[in-house]
Amino acid sequence: MMEQVPGTLGTSASLALHLGQTIFSSASLLFMCLDVEFYSYTSFSYLVTVMGLVTPWSVSLALVDAYSVFIKRLPRQPRVLLIVIVGDWALSFLSLAAACSTASVTSLLVDVGKSNCPSKLCSRYQLSAAMAFLSWFLSFSSTLLNLWLLPSL
Amino acid sequence: MMEQVPGTLGTSASLALHLGQTIFSSASLLFMCLDVEFYSYTSFSYLVTVMGLVTPWSVSLALVDAYSVFIKRLPRQPRVLLIVIVGDWALSFLSLAAACSTASVTSLLVDVGKSNCPSKLCSRYQLSAAMAFLSWFLSFSSTLLNLWLLPSL
Repeated sequence: MMEQVPGTLGTSASLALHLGQTIFSSASLLFMCLDVEFYSYTSFSYLVTVMGLVTPWSVSLALVDAYSVFIKRLPRQPRVLLIVIVGDWALSFLSLAAACSTASVTSLLVDVGKSNCPSKLCSRYQLSAAMAFLSWFLSFSSTLLNLWLLPSL
Repeated sequence: MMEQVPGTLGTSASLALHLGQTIFSSASLLFMCLDVEFYSYTSFSYLVTVMGLVTPWSVSLALVDAYSVFIKRLPRQPRVLLIVIVGDWALSFLSLAAACSTASVTSLLVDVGKSNCPSKLCSRYQLSAAMAFLSWFLSFSSTLLNLWLLPSL
């Protein structure tokens, strides 16, 4: 039962996925939070909340992967894998929702109110939404790859 | 191989799911389209596009289900099941994205511009977003139930 499916928990592909997820989600968080008053719009606060959940989750999974790749191979437990799949799944839905809300609100702000949105701020919102989409994509592929493995356990 | 998992294609539970999906997606489409100029906002046009895809898809699946339940049991083919799973999957993501965008834009319109959004229009937007969320939920559960069956084929 120790065949190596690439992308499942504890492999180097999974380490790369989770590192990318960490980078994108924290970039999205920073673009949205730093020096911007994001809390006047509901969607932006929601994005900050979700990315604040995604970042520690992907950091801890990346740590587990790094331990398993570099130090000592961990035995594969179905219960742990199930928790990882469900968590990734829920967070991928939440981050898709947050990314869509942010993108649509930003596009509305660009269209309607020039006064609400100086061009510098608006491009930061757009960058933040793009990073959230990338983070969603990575966590979704991680879910799919782990789900692939589940029936074989 | 003819055990009856409830909710998979061709059972009465699946018929109920797809009928509900048809009702909710067409309700969302009607609330958004009828007598409203939806095309001035990107998210609303997107919602109309996605719901215009979801409605015929769920109608055709409901017809397949009804044929299988009431007239003649169809043999289960892995290829057809795979197409149904992938289609449901993609449409569930699209409708989640559309529902989130519509909800966030509506909430922004309610907050910011009273002049842009008379209260009657705004409640219709909100109803449309709620219907889109319900339609997403049904198509997502249909995906999950069919996915459950796939490894046994």
